[in-house]
Amino acid sequence: MKFKLDGVSGSARACTITTAHSTIQTPVFMPVGTVGSIKSLDMSDMIDLLETKIILANTYHMYLRPGDKSVKELGGLHKFSTYPNSFLTDSGGFQAFSLSDISKADSGGIEFRSHIDGSKHYFTPSKVIDIQRNLGSDIMMVLDDLVALPATQERIALSIERTTAWAKESLEYHNATKSADSTQNLFAIIQGGTDKLWRTRSAKQLCALEFDGFAIGGLSVGESSEDMYETVEHTIEHMPDNKPRYLMGVGTPEDLIENIERGVDMFDCVMPTRNARNGTLFTSRGRVSIKSARYKLDESAVDEECECYTCKRYSRAYLNHLFRAKEISYARLASLHNLHYYLNLMKCAREAILADKFSEFKKDFYAKRSS
Amino acid sequence: MKFKLDGVSGSARACTITTAHSTIQTPVFMPVGTVGSIKSLDMSDMIDLLETKIILANTYHMYLRPGDKSVKELGGLHKFSTYPNSFLTDSGGFQAFSLSDISKADSGGIEFRSHIDGSKHYFTPSKVIDIQRNLGSDIMMVLDDLVALPATQERIALSIERTTAWAKESLEYHNATKSADSTQNLFAIIQGGTDKLWRTRSAKQLCALEFDGFAIGGLSVGESSEDMYETVEHTIEHMPDNKPRYLMGVGTPEDLIENIERGVDMFDCVMPTRNARNGTLFTSRGRVSIKSARYKLDESAVDEECECYTCKRYSRAYLNHLFRAKEISYARLASLHNLHYYLNLMKCAREAILADKFSEFKKDFYAKRSS
Repeated sequence: MKFKLDGVSGSARACTITTAHSTIQTPVFMPVGTVGSIKSLDMSDMIDLLETKIILANTYHMYLRPGDKSVKELGGLHKFSTYPNSFLTDSGGFQAFSLSDISKADSGGIEFRSHIDGSKHYFTPSKVIDIQRNLGSDIMMVLDDLVALPATQERIALSIERTTAWAKESLEYHNATKSADSTQNLFAIIQGGTDKLWRTRSAKQLCALEFDGFAIGGLSVGESSEDMYETVEHTIEHMPDNKPRYLMGVGTPEDLIENIERGVDMFDCVMPTRNARNGTLFTSRGRVSIKSARYKLDESAVDEECECYTCKRYSRAYLNHLFRAKEISYARLASLHNLHYYLNLMKCAREAILADKFSEFKKDFYAKRSS
Repeated sequence: MKFKLDGVSGSARACTITTAHSTIQTPVFMPVGTVGSIKSLDMSDMIDLLETKIILANTYHMYLRPGDKSVKELGGLHKFSTYPNSFLTDSGGFQAFSLSDISKADSGGIEFRSHIDGSKHYFTPSKVIDIQRNLGSDIMMVLDDLVALPATQERIALSIERTTAWAKESLEYHNATKSADSTQNLFAIIQGGTDKLWRTRSAKQLCALEFDGFAIGGLSVGESSEDMYETVEHTIEHMPDNKPRYLMGVGTPEDLIENIERGVDMFDCVMPTRNARNGTLFTSRGRVSIKSARYKLDESAVDEECECYTCKRYSRAYLNHLFRAKEISYARLASLHNLHYYLNLMKCAREAILADKFSEFKKDFYAKRSS
């Protein structure tokens, strides 16, 4: 992986990340393709309509179904799904923790039951590397030890200790066993809740290691926006300038803008696609609840300024109708719009950074919404 | 509406029908867009990927939601849905009959309750013309009196009598009230179950009237294929050569081939889209149940001979995975394939008719499936 800093505007950065499969310009939002498919869309949409350069797939889901060995047999995630650009895969730890009825971590890894059939599984640092190797993703994430907040100081201390130990184990395992022509990269995940001391410790321990990039994990789990922004700002102080910074599972358009301002390069979140399905559409003037009766006879586009597939074709009235009639096609049209909104926001943020006008950009962003 | 007979092969016909919105080459299969949207697809798919020239929308559904008056206010079905080619709308009688808990016909029309909110409604011959006028479809269907089979001879006699009376009333109302620049056409519907005498009577009564085309209704309701084919063959003897012949609600690929051979020009059916969603894909070699475990590692396309969007991109293995993971995108990819199969079958049938080789075409069609 190549990393190049193209420009800064305050703490905001515009970078170029080059993997074996694509060239990614940051700030970048990575659409979430949980099972190797972006919900409601197909991979040609991701290329032809949305021009994405990187998407995320969930290791937990692919491991359980169709199985990472099947994906490997079918040529890996890229060939299986036909998506030619980069894949980032998470470690599976978060899903093992959140989707399983029973999950528990010990010093060796995380035991959990499949949400599909209840079968028992055990994720270890080396096992999730093996799985992600079978998937063939461009960026792999290490297994980390999550804690539900609030937690005792002892539990948080243990989480930080384990997260570092597992990260070291992952890196050693990857370096010792990777093939000579491997193009896969490995990111570590900084933990520590919203506590500055723990975040400092986790960041220092992990950033001393030779990872290809670093993520901030354990946020967007119910803390206030202020706490999130402060934690990111603080954590980034301990992260290197010459490697990608990825804020996991974030967030709203406002969250993206605030965290770009603080120096984050990469984001992922289910929000644009999930909200689309639930009837919430993002626009330059704020959110539109498309199911509202006020749009029943509204012939305008969701966002008159938007250039997406949906806005160029369909009216609010038609989308309102499709939503109310529970038409499957609504989900695709709405998801295309919301993802276009997110991706375009990132593109405009990058342009503003390169022109060293990020603070003006941010001001305009908020001014439009309150107008 | 202009009608031109381009060629025949035995009793099979290739025609060109020209409406105000498109030129339709027959035999034609009309995808069903119940609520003004083809399930799982959007209207650009119908043009860009499937090149359809005519689709069907259900009057009953559009009347209840969003309401025909709303559709009129939004510029009619074409503008509302953005579909620029022809629309055929049914009369709504069949849905009033089949979707409502309580529905009863009297001499004036059909009383029913909405399947959405239970509200009471009454369809009369003139009312369904008014609704279809608000929708702005290119081809409107008259209200007919359906009977559930088996039925007594008295009930069938009453159905034939009412169907003719309502057809006359519809035609008179349409002619007396249509605007000078109306481009809408009106088709009558021949009833009579699978009884030759009743079919003869219904066909003779209706075909004596100046409708723009004639449909065969009341089939594909559980009768055997043989009964269907015999009834169509018999009924067509009493239908004019110089007007379109439309077999409503039919059917399987085999049904299409058999009825084209007997002289049918137009078809509609939910089968390609509904079966797609349920996991059944049509191919030149027969049906594929894509959810079957045998396709889990199958890297070939659904149909190696198929040129559709889905077959050009995705493997059976990936579609199998999307189906099992209940991904919404599966429904679109499968529907695109099945509709492409149906539309391509019609295109090939037309070519065979124009070359006067329909019987060879039919032989090949069956030979491939049993190979």
